[in-house]
Amino acid sequence: MSGRRREGRDPGPPGPGALLPALDERQLEVLRRVGREWGRVCGDPKLWREALPVDPNLGGFPDPADIRPTRFGRFVPVSAQNGALPAVEARSSEDEQMRGPAWRLALELRRVLLGAPLRSTAIAHERMRKLVALPVLSADALSSVAYGPQAMLAILVLAGGAGLRYSLPIAATIAFLMLSVGVSYRQTIRAYPHGGGSYIVASDNLGRVPGLIAAAGLMTDYILTVSVSIASGIAAITSAIPSLDAATVPIGVAVIAVLLAGNLRGVRQAGALFAAPTYAFMIAIAALVAVGLLDAAGHGFRPTPAPRLSATEAVGVLLVLRAFASGSTAMTGIEAISNAVPAFQPPEWRNARTTLTWMVSLLIAMFAGTIAMVHLDGVVPNAHETVVSQLAHRSFGPGFMYAFTQAATAAILLLAANTAYNDFPRVLFLLARDDQAPRLFLRMGDRLAFSNGIVFLSIAATAIFVGFAGKTEPLIPLFAVGVFLAFTMSQAGMVAHWWRLRDARWRRSLFFNATGGALSAIVFVTAGITKFTAGAWVALLAVGLFILTAQRIRHHYTLAGEALALHPHAIELPRHTIVPSLGEHDGSAAPAAGRRPPSTTAPVESPEAEESPEAEESPEAEESPEPEESPEEIHHLTIVPVATLDRASMRALAYAASLQQPVLALHVSPTEEEAARFGDYWRTWGDHLPLEVVVSPYRAIVAPMIDYIASLHAQRPVLTLTVILPEIVVRHWWHRILHNRTATRLRRALRPLPKIVVTTVPFHLPS
Amino acid sequence: MSGRRREGRDPGPPGPGALLPALDERQLEVLRRVGREWGRVCGDPKLWREALPVDPNLGGFPDPADIRPTRFGRFVPVSAQNGALPAVEARSSEDEQMRGPAWRLALELRRVLLGAPLRSTAIAHERMRKLVALPVLSADALSSVAYGPQAMLAILVLAGGAGLRYSLPIAATIAFLMLSVGVSYRQTIRAYPHGGGSYIVASDNLGRVPGLIAAAGLMTDYILTVSVSIASGIAAITSAIPSLDAATVPIGVAVIAVLLAGNLRGVRQAGALFAAPTYAFMIAIAALVAVGLLDAAGHGFRPTPAPRLSATEAVGVLLVLRAFASGSTAMTGIEAISNAVPAFQPPEWRNARTTLTWMVSLLIAMFAGTIAMVHLDGVVPNAHETVVSQLAHRSFGPGFMYAFTQAATAAILLLAANTAYNDFPRVLFLLARDDQAPRLFLRMGDRLAFSNGIVFLSIAATAIFVGFAGKTEPLIPLFAVGVFLAFTMSQAGMVAHWWRLRDARWRRSLFFNATGGALSAIVFVTAGITKFTAGAWVALLAVGLFILTAQRIRHHYTLAGEALALHPHAIELPRHTIVPSLGEHDGSAAPAAGRRPPSTTAPVESPEAEESPEAEESPEAEESPEPEESPEEIHHLTIVPVATLDRASMRALAYAASLQQPVLALHVSPTEEEAARFGDYWRTWGDHLPLEVVVSPYRAIVAPMIDYIASLHAQRPVLTLTVILPEIVVRHWWHRILHNRTATRLRRALRPLPKIVVTTVPFHLPS
Repeated sequence: MSGRRREGRDPGPPGPGALLPALDERQLEVLRRVGREWGRVCGDPKLWREALPVDPNLGGFPDPADIRPTRFGRFVPVSAQNGALPAVEARSSEDEQMRGPAWRLALELRRVLLGAPLRSTAIAHERMRKLVALPVLSADALSSVAYGPQAMLAILVLAGGAGLRYSLPIAATIAFLMLSVGVSYRQTIRAYPHGGGSYIVASDNLGRVPGLIAAAGLMTDYILTVSVSIASGIAAITSAIPSLDAATVPIGVAVIAVLLAGNLRGVRQAGALFAAPTYAFMIAIAALVAVGLLDAAGHGFRPTPAPRLSATEAVGVLLVLRAFASGSTAMTGIEAISNAVPAFQPPEWRNARTTLTWMVSLLIAMFAGTIAMVHLDGVVPNAHETVVSQLAHRSFGPGFMYAFTQAATAAILLLAANTAYNDFPRVLFLLARDDQAPRLFLRMGDRLAFSNGIVFLSIAATAIFVGFAGKTEPLIPLFAVGVFLAFTMSQAGMVAHWWRLRDARWRRSLFFNATGGALSAIVFVTAGITKFTAGAWVALLAVGLFILTAQRIRHHYTLAGEALALHPHAIELPRHTIVPSLGEHDGSAAPAAGRRPPSTTAPVESPEAEESPEAEESPEAEESPEPEESPEEIHHLTIVPVATLDRASMRALAYAASLQQPVLALHVSPTEEEAARFGDYWRTWGDHLPLEVVVSPYRAIVAPMIDYIASLHAQRPVLTLTVILPEIVVRHWWHRILHNRTATRLRRALRPLPKIVVTTVPFHLPS
Repeated sequence: MSGRRREGRDPGPPGPGALLPALDERQLEVLRRVGREWGRVCGDPKLWREALPVDPNLGGFPDPADIRPTRFGRFVPVSAQNGALPAVEARSSEDEQMRGPAWRLALELRRVLLGAPLRSTAIAHERMRKLVALPVLSADALSSVAYGPQAMLAILVLAGGAGLRYSLPIAATIAFLMLSVGVSYRQTIRAYPHGGGSYIVASDNLGRVPGLIAAAGLMTDYILTVSVSIASGIAAITSAIPSLDAATVPIGVAVIAVLLAGNLRGVRQAGALFAAPTYAFMIAIAALVAVGLLDAAGHGFRPTPAPRLSATEAVGVLLVLRAFASGSTAMTGIEAISNAVPAFQPPEWRNARTTLTWMVSLLIAMFAGTIAMVHLDGVVPNAHETVVSQLAHRSFGPGFMYAFTQAATAAILLLAANTAYNDFPRVLFLLARDDQAPRLFLRMGDRLAFSNGIVFLSIAATAIFVGFAGKTEPLIPLFAVGVFLAFTMSQAGMVAHWWRLRDARWRRSLFFNATGGALSAIVFVTAGITKFTAGAWVALLAVGLFILTAQRIRHHYTLAGEALALHPHAIELPRHTIVPSLGEHDGSAAPAAGRRPPSTTAPVESPEAEESPEAEESPEAEESPEPEESPEEIHHLTIVPVATLDRASMRALAYAASLQQPVLALHVSPTEEEAARFGDYWRTWGDHLPLEVVVSPYRAIVAPMIDYIASLHAQRPVLTLTVILPEIVVRHWWHRILHNRTATRLRRALRPLPKIVVTTVPFHLPS
């Protein structure tokens, strides 16, 4: 592995732990120092432990390995101290009742569609034999034969018969390209025995931005693999059953929905099932070519003349290059094996290389065979029947073998689309682990799949599929640009790798990688230039935007990480020790000597007396407005907004008073009269807590409240203001419209203000 | 006023105080008793006041009367102690900056469209002279002449020329109906000098459900007044300029938008401006009739024969009744004056009665004149030109007077629509004050308008207008049903009123009201039956649904009110006094003797020792699970969910510790390894607070957390659990996707649980 990997630590394979990364040595040291500061402020940890009025163990948890997923999902069942589970059961059924039948139905539907949750230890580490790995990993590459040649011919045919004559030389060039990219990836397998995707190779060896470019290419590649494969698969079906043609878009969307559900459920690459379509497709193409060649031998290999075509363009360099770029999509998916080296049986890298060699040979053979048949049969692409379907018709007639060929083509294309579902979320995971994508892509769902990435891919692929009405041709330019961008970055990374490493045989490897990379770059540039107006500009723009977004995300996470990182800060001298207030609910009132040091109490300062200390404190407080990372630094003032003196408010006031910090009740009144009346009520109640009434002449409630609280903060920035909001909780969401949303609006308005803590005291309405 | 009004108290006219109603004597007594209980628990109020670390007066508020609305709106500017306003200004501009230019633009747009806020004392109490009140209050009624006769003719014409012959007798019946309903409302004015809308009269005298029926009728009436008046107004314009016909729907929606904005801005009934269209319309109709009669006199009053019409229906009782019901819409709005008695100059009721008499006379004259002209000119309704437009063409030709007539018609119809904007929100306000509509309709906006009702009316009227494509005919049946339902309930209420009151002349009043009520009932029944399939069933269904909804709303508010009502509950004996913890931020550490009574502290109970007291407490706690209305009853346990040991978590932990209540930190871990690692970090930090780690084998975070907290509650239901959530606050909403929403999800999941208080400790990320 290259030494450039972030700070030398290998983050390991994707897993559920990535959301909570380990601390490094420096961070641990800071943690230790922060802890020492707390130690000087907080009392003996034993006191805090003993103060707990509950047993936190709840009578002990069952062994996580023994927990079976329950109907209510994925939480840890807790057995209460007496061994029964009253609390959980009661809550669950009450909860369920509260959410109503729609929620239960959704829960059941989810279970049926997605299956029961899988535990984290169920991550599959299956190893594949070469004869299993070959079909599974080469579905993407081999299925490209179904659309690559057709994409090439579709360009050449624009120049009529004259254009078609170039098909053989262009195909030969593409075959050579396949060979050299294949050899190039053999080098990658040697260097990255743990799996070397384009993103890893490029960012390891070339740096962050090239890595992002590779990732952008890869993601374009995977999204388009889904769209193009499904579109081609449906074309294979509609070639056989033309009446389905009108339903292309709904069928495609349904197929994506099935892939989405299957992958959220966590479809594993399960041997035989996934091997079948690939082998079937190989057999079909081999039979097609064999029958066709026998047939052609009967005619002395004289090509059937292509039908007369009206040329709309002249043959020129540009046309040939465009055809070359389009035809190159026949090699998409060739990188799959180098990504998946660890999935092979040991010795992994050697088995992977052998399989890659087989795959590239098969790919070249099938590609060459298809092109040869096209040449011999004089087939030209048309809008209603795919080239493979036309070839199959000529070779087999309309019988069983034709149907078999079309079915195998559709099946391998579907399988290829599924490959993207495995790889796309993994790229997003790696990006998110490097802070270059939102962290939600790190989360593994119930079924150990990266659900967010899978959903994202489905949405993107559906949008493209529907946007282009299930047609493949307009997607080909975008596809070529994405694929060869990723290839180029990957090979360039390998060149840098060998140059830096210089182990045995580095010169040979570097040569192969340089050749593959140069050829890929030529295809990329060709595709980008010749197809710029035909859609490649969209791909290039998307790549640019992606890189910008990833940079912004990384910038944000870096700032957030710095802001959130612990740092020790000087505490002068602990003036007293903070210990828990002691349980007052046990019926015994005997004071425990020494529990609370007398210095906890300090004299009340009157508002008049505080002028000067505040003046001294303020600048310091403004310099670092929100330290508050040690209990010593927090000075409380509790504010309770009260609208009416009902039970909900009374509960909030009681809660505030029970915290035994200074309390200020706040009432906003629309009129002077109401203000006077509320003051009377307050005195009727007994005026137990200080009250401030603000008259809001424009009847607004939230704005004056916020303004008052902000002014209190300005008056004494050192205080932490706790706003205690009584909130009425209704049982049905449609009852919410019957109660004002002041608590919610206040909470939202207070959120951006500094040093304001918001506490919600709920009051549950019956029924 | 009738004695049935709720508990005898007069809630007064609509105003901003309605959101905070006064307490009655019984509630005050409960408040006093609750206060005494607090008095036994809380320390001397003086201590709480002195403990305040801030001056709550903030240096004194300016006199509300001197406050001018600022650019940032509607809050009370607070002058800080030094007289400057640093805090508010800083906050506002920071706030503004944070919300970005879109928010500023919206603010400006709002100000331009709606104007500066109005203070509560600006509620208009203008008094109108009779000659101003007449046009303002009779616009709705008189404008009905523009569509009532046409609606009647549109039915009769179905029977061809034979049907048209019934127009005169039906019109005579309607005129008699107008007279008797007018006389009937004269009685209402006498009985309700403070304004007697149908809802008030019906619910005062007949009870809640009849009141709701009247309200349903009224609301249908007002919504349809807007739709029908605007549709007719546009028809008046398109009759003159047929090329605008295709734009009927957009024009109508634009007009509703203007009415919406104007009324949100708080359009007052401002004399001359509102008087002009009504007088113009009166002049136009008078001129039309005069010219027409002169003309007819020239022909010896021989009616011009109507064009040959093919009859599609035979003349029958049903057709005549349908025509009568449709024509009765010519008297919609006749109740307006009785609603608005207090707006007259004193003696209000006498002036109002005089004005009503004038109005009814004018209405009958204009209605009769129009019908006479239709008869004489042989006009039949057609789809492209209104009847009034046809009459104006015949009387005036295409010149200035024709244009004037059409313009005046459109203007008075627009004014009539505006009348509904005054009355509809008022009905909703009255319903909401009686707990029969959501309380949000009690709120007065910036501009002293009932914004929510105005918006609701606009949405409903737009939906109906667009749904019926701006056509009036299909709306007429719904309209008639609603109007006459309200009339009937109102008059029936008056009958009950006189029967109960029996003052001088009660018999005469009762007779007039009974006649008016009976005739209205006949029209209502006629409209309901004859037009049942033509749309009246929608109106009847809507009335039924409305009553059901209002009943459910009242039921909910009653339950909520009972749940929220204060009730004294026995506190056995105060074991100690709760006093505020004292400011620890003043630099002085000298203990203040006697501030904190020694009994505040109590011995720590160990988990083992608590078994038996808990067993005794639990049943009691389950009987009344959420009293917590006195500080004494609250026993704290603070729970801090911690994901990583960053500054945000550290701040939450510090906040928790500073409250000096028992603290338990809670960590949910996806794997055993992560759990062990987190435990190490916790010990590295110093293990200052008790920690519990829960391993969630299915990687869910929120569900196990909720389950654990619910189990703690079950273990000791007497505790109030305060869950302290660290929450990362970003400055731009689009950054939210980059951080997990665990705090929000936890808060939502905890909301339905009993005795859980949720505290959010924000951590503000830079940039």
